[in-house]
Amino acid sequence: MKITKDLYHGSLALLTDFYQLTMAYAYWKSGKADQQAVFNLFFRKNPFQSGFTVAAGLDYVIDFCRNFKFEENDLEYLQQMTQKDGTPTFEEGFIQYLRELKFSCDVDAVEEGTVIFPNTPMVRVRGPLLQCQLLETPLLNIINFQTLVATKASRISLEAKGDPVLEFGLRRAQGIDGALAASRASYIGGCSSTSNVMAGKLFGIPVSGTHAHSWIMAFDTELEAFEAYAEAFPDNCIFLVDTYDTLKGIQNAIKVGQSLKAKGKKMLGIRIDSGDLAYYSNVAREMLDEAGFPDAKVVASNDLDEHILSSLKMQEAAIDIWGIGTKLVTAYDQPALGAVYKMAAIKNEKGDWVPKLKVSQQAVKINIPGFQNVRRFYKNGKAMADMVYLENGEKLPDEITIIDPNDPTKRKKIQSGALESKVLLKSIFKEGEKVYTRPKLDEIREKTLTGLGRFDKAHKRLINPHIYPVGLEESLYHLRTDLVLKAKNYH
Amino acid sequence: MKITKDLYHGSLALLTDFYQLTMAYAYWKSGKADQQAVFNLFFRKNPFQSGFTVAAGLDYVIDFCRNFKFEENDLEYLQQMTQKDGTPTFEEGFIQYLRELKFSCDVDAVEEGTVIFPNTPMVRVRGPLLQCQLLETPLLNIINFQTLVATKASRISLEAKGDPVLEFGLRRAQGIDGALAASRASYIGGCSSTSNVMAGKLFGIPVSGTHAHSWIMAFDTELEAFEAYAEAFPDNCIFLVDTYDTLKGIQNAIKVGQSLKAKGKKMLGIRIDSGDLAYYSNVAREMLDEAGFPDAKVVASNDLDEHILSSLKMQEAAIDIWGIGTKLVTAYDQPALGAVYKMAAIKNEKGDWVPKLKVSQQAVKINIPGFQNVRRFYKNGKAMADMVYLENGEKLPDEITIIDPNDPTKRKKIQSGALESKVLLKSIFKEGEKVYTRPKLDEIREKTLTGLGRFDKAHKRLINPHIYPVGLEESLYHLRTDLVLKAKNYH
Repeated sequence: MKITKDLYHGSLALLTDFYQLTMAYAYWKSGKADQQAVFNLFFRKNPFQSGFTVAAGLDYVIDFCRNFKFEENDLEYLQQMTQKDGTPTFEEGFIQYLRELKFSCDVDAVEEGTVIFPNTPMVRVRGPLLQCQLLETPLLNIINFQTLVATKASRISLEAKGDPVLEFGLRRAQGIDGALAASRASYIGGCSSTSNVMAGKLFGIPVSGTHAHSWIMAFDTELEAFEAYAEAFPDNCIFLVDTYDTLKGIQNAIKVGQSLKAKGKKMLGIRIDSGDLAYYSNVAREMLDEAGFPDAKVVASNDLDEHILSSLKMQEAAIDIWGIGTKLVTAYDQPALGAVYKMAAIKNEKGDWVPKLKVSQQAVKINIPGFQNVRRFYKNGKAMADMVYLENGEKLPDEITIIDPNDPTKRKKIQSGALESKVLLKSIFKEGEKVYTRPKLDEIREKTLTGLGRFDKAHKRLINPHIYPVGLEESLYHLRTDLVLKAKNYH
Repeated sequence: MKITKDLYHGSLALLTDFYQLTMAYAYWKSGKADQQAVFNLFFRKNPFQSGFTVAAGLDYVIDFCRNFKFEENDLEYLQQMTQKDGTPTFEEGFIQYLRELKFSCDVDAVEEGTVIFPNTPMVRVRGPLLQCQLLETPLLNIINFQTLVATKASRISLEAKGDPVLEFGLRRAQGIDGALAASRASYIGGCSSTSNVMAGKLFGIPVSGTHAHSWIMAFDTELEAFEAYAEAFPDNCIFLVDTYDTLKGIQNAIKVGQSLKAKGKKMLGIRIDSGDLAYYSNVAREMLDEAGFPDAKVVASNDLDEHILSSLKMQEAAIDIWGIGTKLVTAYDQPALGAVYKMAAIKNEKGDWVPKLKVSQQAVKINIPGFQNVRRFYKNGKAMADMVYLENGEKLPDEITIIDPNDPTKRKKIQSGALESKVLLKSIFKEGEKVYTRPKLDEIREKTLTGLGRFDKAHKRLINPHIYPVGLEESLYHLRTDLVLKAKNYH
């Protein structure tokens, strides 16, 4: 058994919280398994104090749903589970129900590479209650992490201002898939390559890399090591110069660069992995320029993130290419997104949709009820606001007011008739059948870059970004307020 | 293709950084591929400002090594890679070398569940340079993450002082394997169960779970929802009471608990997932006691970690069972361990082992050279110090001095002859053949618990733990110092 491109094409039906199965059983027991429901996946806060978030993970979700099926060995595992009194946890009729279960939900989602904001649905699942419930945990696992890393990568790439950013986090990533999925999401966010060869093979991401300190240590001297590497890869020499003494390392790199030049070859550059990167990059630049290598690149690495990168840029560090690992693939300063998946409506026995709400003592944790979609409005080519609205077939009026769900005094009037706009949720599955054509990974990456280009730079600021307006369409706002008051017994 | 128990029994040869392959190629080109070398995997600092670390991940490493093999589709991927000028990156002779490559290293490692400390080898690999190099990235990926989570879990479990700790991080974990490996490592560290059903199936970890807020929302009233759940699982009722109003939720739970009692059944308890846990747990306890449910448990969850758990204990929160997710499985306050894998020695052409050192401007980043092992000494039943020493067949003297690698004035005399001691590295592979019998997961978990029991509680303190002494045996200390001075050209 190997991890291959098909990894997520198999069944992962048991990749879920046990309570999803106990609830599924209890839904089945109480005759509610096939009651129609709608759930929304959304997050409440941009990660990293960012002004935006970049969606990723849908491709995995599609594979998960397409292959949603309980295999016999999954069922055997469930069959052998017992309660305290030794009787089986699940009745045989339920096991048979799972055996015959076919994925039949509608799934709508924002596409990967879409710039998104808090409190708007990223994935909307409509279908039998039991199935919606079983999807909760795997969808959150997939979307939470990949969206987090794509957002981190886009923040880093924005600060790099066009310089290539190499992702090489595999050794510090959280597990094997924590690395593979991170490499993919990093590329979606704007990285230019990965060190992870398997990610290169599985997803078609460009791979890059030259040599490590151990290469130098395997030889008696650094110079010999550089020479031997140049022998093997005369066209791919980026010499790591800080194994023993950075300045001498640069001198040795220049020596070998000169013999490459004599052979009609070209040293690509040097890499610095420790010490003061601002100082040493400038010293290296000067030495390389003086020695006649103005095109040789300076690659820098060592626990970088978007903040250190930005600081190095401000200090005019002479760094051309950035290698970023740990802080990117683990989303170090906020290693979880915290997206949730909440019931928004359920169909009652009369066939009417009943909007649903979870009340909380923390106002920000109260979800948005009803069957929703999101529309993004543009003005003069720039995104100006996102509106969450009830998708009930009614035409929107020409002038709309949107209201901040957490501050009713924050409102925005939108002349919707006069503005360019687009709906963000796309249909992915209809009654269990895939109706969406997946874009190529390069197209997704391009979507991120052009999508971000349509937002004012104030929203993309590293620290204290200007908050992009997201509001509930007026009638949805009032529906929600009424439901909260009702739940709190104020009317 | 599915994730099954065999997931890591397949080849993951490409799960590595590209520079490992370019170095492998260059070793091969320069005739060094089969030169014997020794590499050590170690970390420099306990995570989370902890006073100790708990080793995990060896089981995955064993599978990785046993199945180390380049498959034809891996080789095809490498064959189609080209340099800038369009010629293949790797010569066909190298591809053939990889095709025929058989894992033939010696691997020694500390067992999973072992309490360990900075600067001591966790995994030692000896064998052909090219193979040692290719193992670097996957070994770091596996050990870094699982050790990190096992350590976090053990810190949490220590603060829980015997209360059950349920791990339910799947939805926020970093990828699918970031969840599965975390569930396993959490159990090794002392958690009592997981919510992740697939982890239960693959690793035999007990699974637990009851219902979510959505269960409540699927019914018209909370009371109906509790009743329906009790109908399905009369023996497994832990009612989540905070969907609408926590106090009313507890009242409803008590009502259903009473009807269960009337039927000869027993409500297990309630769960609180929001609001002030110290306050509501005590209110719940009082209400449950008054209503005649002194045995009903109070389960608490909501972004808990070892610090909040400890604080709730100090406030005498009436919490019996702790549910911990995000902060545990992502190791939230330090999501990467930062272990490294460094060459320690290489055999020269004369057949002599030459100790190797990477110098750095940061003294703490200078590795420990030579073929090492670790011995732990015990006094009066408690661990008193760990010694890193050169494994050269020489008998240790009866009195040993160990020296802190980062502070030569910190020394400790050890009457080694009179003390109980044990060597921490165990032989796992001999010339590529597995010679180690893997313990069962429950045995590993037990090893963690009893191992921690042999350390003074001062080392296990949550904040500002007493530093456990780890030192280099005197001759190793001097060897290292000499090599550093030599590398810095002081003699």
